[in-house]
Amino acid sequence: MRYYEDIDVGEIHEFGEYHVTKAEIIEFAEQYDPQPFHTDEAAAGDSAFGELVASGWHTAAMCMRLLVDGPLHNRASMGARGVDELRWKRPVRPGDTLSVRSEVIDKRVSESDPERGYVDSLLEGITQDGDVVISWIGLGMIARRNPPEE
Amino acid sequence: MRYYEDIDVGEIHEFGEYHVTKAEIIEFAEQYDPQPFHTDEAAAGDSAFGELVASGWHTAAMCMRLLVDGPLHNRASMGARGVDELRWKRPVRPGDTLSVRSEVIDKRVSESDPERGYVDSLLEGITQDGDVVISWIGLGMIARRNPPEE
Repeated sequence: MRYYEDIDVGEIHEFGEYHVTKAEIIEFAEQYDPQPFHTDEAAAGDSAFGELVASGWHTAAMCMRLLVDGPLHNRASMGARGVDELRWKRPVRPGDTLSVRSEVIDKRVSESDPERGYVDSLLEGITQDGDVVISWIGLGMIARRNPPEE
Repeated sequence: MRYYEDIDVGEIHEFGEYHVTKAEIIEFAEQYDPQPFHTDEAAAGDSAFGELVASGWHTAAMCMRLLVDGPLHNRASMGARGVDELRWKRPVRPGDTLSVRSEVIDKRVSESDPERGYVDSLLEGITQDGDVVISWIGLGMIARRNPPEE
């Protein structure tokens, strides 16, 4: 298990493969983002997108799945405080395959809780063609190692 | 249908009711955020949260559904550029009922595409007890009215 002390600013990971299907785009959107350009191929053709595209929240969620299976799987995560500067740079379409690139850009101990570390990462979701479709700064929390027990 | 010209900076909407169930928290998390504090009640009890809580991305998605059924339903939306300053302020638990408060904080015409308006809104997800669980600034895009046709 990796704790706060084990994370280095500057460390970079590239990982994962998430295959995006039309059925999943529509299923997510019907539950959480039922705008016509996410749920209806014909209506999407007449929209600003010109085709069916994934909800931006769905794109973020698919990248989150890759993060959990990737660098978070052995990290003593305590959740996240939030997200800064999330940008949807290009629509995600049926048939795309997403991977994620993460880079640790800052770390520091919480001032209010010295058991808790803050780790900030730049995250990018990238298609099979190398296009960045989403980026954000994740504001993570991670447990510190218990110093006396090492 | 409301276009860019119909939106006023300062307009506030409060709307929606989303009933959060344990089954839906687990279903979303198993697909998109399978960390134990989102998928497993026993493991969640031993986590920093002390109980099963919704994925932060799920909380955002549930609020998005209220937005689509609420102020976005008659808006000439062209999607969103992104999100700034998203903060998860308090965990969402099974049995919570969420509503959303939106406030338009800025609007301007896109410099690169004069057909397109930018509308920025402060969004808050709020429980039945009035606790803000999530907030973010949504960077929306909305079509302009075609001036000659009015």
